[in-house]
Amino acid sequence: MRIAIASDHAALALKSALADYLRGLGHNVADLGPHDETSVDYPDYGYSLAAAIADGSAERGIALCGSGIGISIAVNRNPGARAALVSEPLSARLAREHNDANVIAMGARLIGIEMAKACIDAFLLTDFGGDRHQRRVDKLSNPITTKEPA
Amino acid sequence: MRIAIASDHAALALKSALADYLRGLGHNVADLGPHDETSVDYPDYGYSLAAAIADGSAERGIALCGSGIGISIAVNRNPGARAALVSEPLSARLAREHNDANVIAMGARLIGIEMAKACIDAFLLTDFGGDRHQRRVDKLSNPITTKEPA
Repeated sequence: MRIAIASDHAALALKSALADYLRGLGHNVADLGPHDETSVDYPDYGYSLAAAIADGSAERGIALCGSGIGISIAVNRNPGARAALVSEPLSARLAREHNDANVIAMGARLIGIEMAKACIDAFLLTDFGGDRHQRRVDKLSNPITTKEPA
Repeated sequence: MRIAIASDHAALALKSALADYLRGLGHNVADLGPHDETSVDYPDYGYSLAAAIADGSAERGIALCGSGIGISIAVNRNPGARAALVSEPLSARLAREHNDANVIAMGARLIGIEMAKACIDAFLLTDFGGDRHQRRVDKLSNPITTKEPA
């Protein structure tokens, strides 16, 4: 699978370890940076990752920052991305089954490496449930960000 | 504080319990629905909540669905909302300190009522850290959803 991974400086070591893990599983991994420990802004990397998902150059994405919160917000600004912030594999599985999530976000300062790998396994191995969930996912692709006229 | 709360049918009971909790703390709570157990689509309620945050009618929001994932994605489609999906209070605190989160999302099928209350307490009582975090939060308000020209 073509998987893109991006982070901020706080999650550089986790990004590197998870990229190695994904390559070891046989996936084609695009590391979208950052590539050194210089302080960066997580939205920049979240937007790059979401764009790679939206244009189809990546099928799945892994988004990392200190808590996972900031980069998960950034990725979800793009209607083509559906990012689930997870800390354990059950949520990673539900994100696929119910929400057809194409990105998982994790917090490098909150999650351990083996838990992160277990989340990735659940994320990559679970199929979308379709059915009633499809209608809801379609609505996520066509967001309404203004109030309806009264 | 003016707090809006919204969910889907799976989180109706948790929404009701948390609305009572917030009113007991003295907050002005707007329950944006749903108001019965009919099956609904979480994006509809997430978009309503985000619009209430974006237009200032609510200062903070609580977003609930079965896992918290779907509605957190929906809320974050609105550049005026910053929703953190949380399962414990440390993340709720970091969401405020680092990301100036104005919404927390939680999963009714994953979190217990006392943990949810502890998340709300951390969310409502923590101030934004400002400083370098402000620049990143500003970028979340001005998302880039297309790739930069080569």
